[in-house]
Amino acid sequence: MSVSGGDILYLDHAATSPLRPEAREAFLRAADMGGNASSVHSLGRKAKMTLEEARNDILLHVGAIGIGGLVFTSGGTEANALALHQAKGYDYTVVSAGEHDSIYGAVSGAGIVPLKAPGEVDLAALQSLLGRDGRPFVSIMLANNETGVINDIASAAALVHARGGWLHVDVVQTLGKIAIDFAELGADSLSLSAHKIGGGQGVGALVYNRDHTLKALITGSGQERGMRAGTENIAGIAAFAAALKACHGMPDDLCSAQNSVEAALKALGVTILGAEAARVPGILYIAQADWASNLQLIHMDMAGICVSSGSACSSGKVKSSRVVTAMGRPDLADKVLRISSGWTTKAENWQRFYDVWSKGYEVYLKRHAKELV
Amino acid sequence: MSVSGGDILYLDHAATSPLRPEAREAFLRAADMGGNASSVHSLGRKAKMTLEEARNDILLHVGAIGIGGLVFTSGGTEANALALHQAKGYDYTVVSAGEHDSIYGAVSGAGIVPLKAPGEVDLAALQSLLGRDGRPFVSIMLANNETGVINDIASAAALVHARGGWLHVDVVQTLGKIAIDFAELGADSLSLSAHKIGGGQGVGALVYNRDHTLKALITGSGQERGMRAGTENIAGIAAFAAALKACHGMPDDLCSAQNSVEAALKALGVTILGAEAARVPGILYIAQADWASNLQLIHMDMAGICVSSGSACSSGKVKSSRVVTAMGRPDLADKVLRISSGWTTKAENWQRFYDVWSKGYEVYLKRHAKELV
Repeated sequence: MSVSGGDILYLDHAATSPLRPEAREAFLRAADMGGNASSVHSLGRKAKMTLEEARNDILLHVGAIGIGGLVFTSGGTEANALALHQAKGYDYTVVSAGEHDSIYGAVSGAGIVPLKAPGEVDLAALQSLLGRDGRPFVSIMLANNETGVINDIASAAALVHARGGWLHVDVVQTLGKIAIDFAELGADSLSLSAHKIGGGQGVGALVYNRDHTLKALITGSGQERGMRAGTENIAGIAAFAAALKACHGMPDDLCSAQNSVEAALKALGVTILGAEAARVPGILYIAQADWASNLQLIHMDMAGICVSSGSACSSGKVKSSRVVTAMGRPDLADKVLRISSGWTTKAENWQRFYDVWSKGYEVYLKRHAKELV
Repeated sequence: MSVSGGDILYLDHAATSPLRPEAREAFLRAADMGGNASSVHSLGRKAKMTLEEARNDILLHVGAIGIGGLVFTSGGTEANALALHQAKGYDYTVVSAGEHDSIYGAVSGAGIVPLKAPGEVDLAALQSLLGRDGRPFVSIMLANNETGVINDIASAAALVHARGGWLHVDVVQTLGKIAIDFAELGADSLSLSAHKIGGGQGVGALVYNRDHTLKALITGSGQERGMRAGTENIAGIAAFAAALKACHGMPDDLCSAQNSVEAALKALGVTILGAEAARVPGILYIAQADWASNLQLIHMDMAGICVSSGSACSSGKVKSSRVVTAMGRPDLADKVLRISSGWTTKAENWQRFYDVWSKGYEVYLKRHAKELV
């Protein structure tokens, strides 16, 4: 397979993770069966059963059985859009400076919670922003998609709920990496994406506290109990649930390999973004003040290694990182590189990344030194 | 395969058509390759190429190369929702009484164009509704999802454009059955769905005239030129394009078989809805004043034949048909049965349907006659 070995080394799982075998199998089983979950005949009822089993499995995985409902969407972005749609019932909106573009770029006039230097959302600043009259709608992600830094959601939830507000939490980059417990987080909703865990593109979900009802963003027909119109993508949904079942966190050898490479990079003087904060495993975000992101990317790509400069969700453009700027390092915002592992990654892949990157950096420095002479 | 032969006879392709082999293959090829179309590395560029080839193939199929743009969505419902989102730039909205729930159920306060008795949209009534000041946003489907009746879109477009309006056309049930020519139709936008042609659930598209720009419904990131945020479902999109390439209209033997069954049903006194209008092949909508839809469905389902009572998109409920009522036959609205063929259907399947249905009807009549005695 081109994505894991041989010619191409894929270390961009945070952008998209290839379809897991378990998901591929579940997809084909459901697709070959066929059926519309709204049809009343036998095949429709089978499709409906596949749908409801998947819903239950995913609710179980995020600790939401009994307290949470789940609406399937076309991905993490639509799940975030559906969450933001609920903000219409609230008086003002507050989002963190670290949110994914599907939140940050989708709000206007929102209060922005700054990040602290290590990368976490500044909860004292959140508290100040919540000093206004009225009920807030707040969006704070669990783990950041660029740095992997984990936010203290339970504390944020307490602040938001003290104001009668709704706390939405984007767990797209957390799912499959560390355990998620809906009740412990205390959030009102969570957005999930299938393809970041190898469950296939085009499927996501919004988990919500059943004390709420959701206002639909896509309306008309009655699917998903009226909260999301459109024929459900049964095969894609089955694949999502199967991929999630196959996630058992990051294996120890991968974590060790990542840690070794981090230590070696630090020794070279490379900045590890988020190093002072708690982070999910599998995401390494580095910056070197001398070497521009686009040059790093070209070098890695020429060597057959797929990494990214941050979020991929910006139409293929290499642009400077809003998140790094929010962490107080605008000088590094266009010097970053994100390496992210996943289910196809082997421990030795981390070393190969390091070898290629450090070699490229050495060559770059020599050339740069000559130009300076 | 359970959907085409052996135990179950699937004649509900208008609800959803099972994944075509060509689509299955294209899905797996793209899924096994992986990649996010927004990533700048080699795998991202390959994903982007797959995406753009699919876009081009679909535009070509609907005669929109050069004049139309295409935004991929999560299905026909989202494509319709995206189209309706454009209505915000217009002064009032008009939709036909025959529109799918994803249009009809998603508007409020819209003018409703009635249907004529044979099932087509009443264009004289449309003209009257367009007599108001301001620019209208109008939605009229090409072929109806229950009856298959084809509307005169070119004439509707002339009326709408004379008022400076936008004409949206839902071609979900037309795609793959008869040729679609975007320029000839003169529409401003078309909504398409993959799963009705065996391209897989969870994928659709909105084709739009490039003289317009689309306002995004799902916002935040920059995908689809800013008109639809969210990582594109590359494998699903590739499957959609492959399915469309495999569509060559309805084979002659299937059309003949359907016609024979229609004639035999007529001879039994059964009403063929839409029989006096031009219809797409592959959809047969019948009604018998004596026999309720839900009883017909149960009988067919017990015999292993999957058909429907109309639109499936109503959360598995058997409810009376709004379309049949709009055709002036409220007496038949809960007595209907829709039989729809597709790529898995063989000519002899129509006869099997007829045999089972007419046998069931005979038994029903006898029982009913006894009860009356």
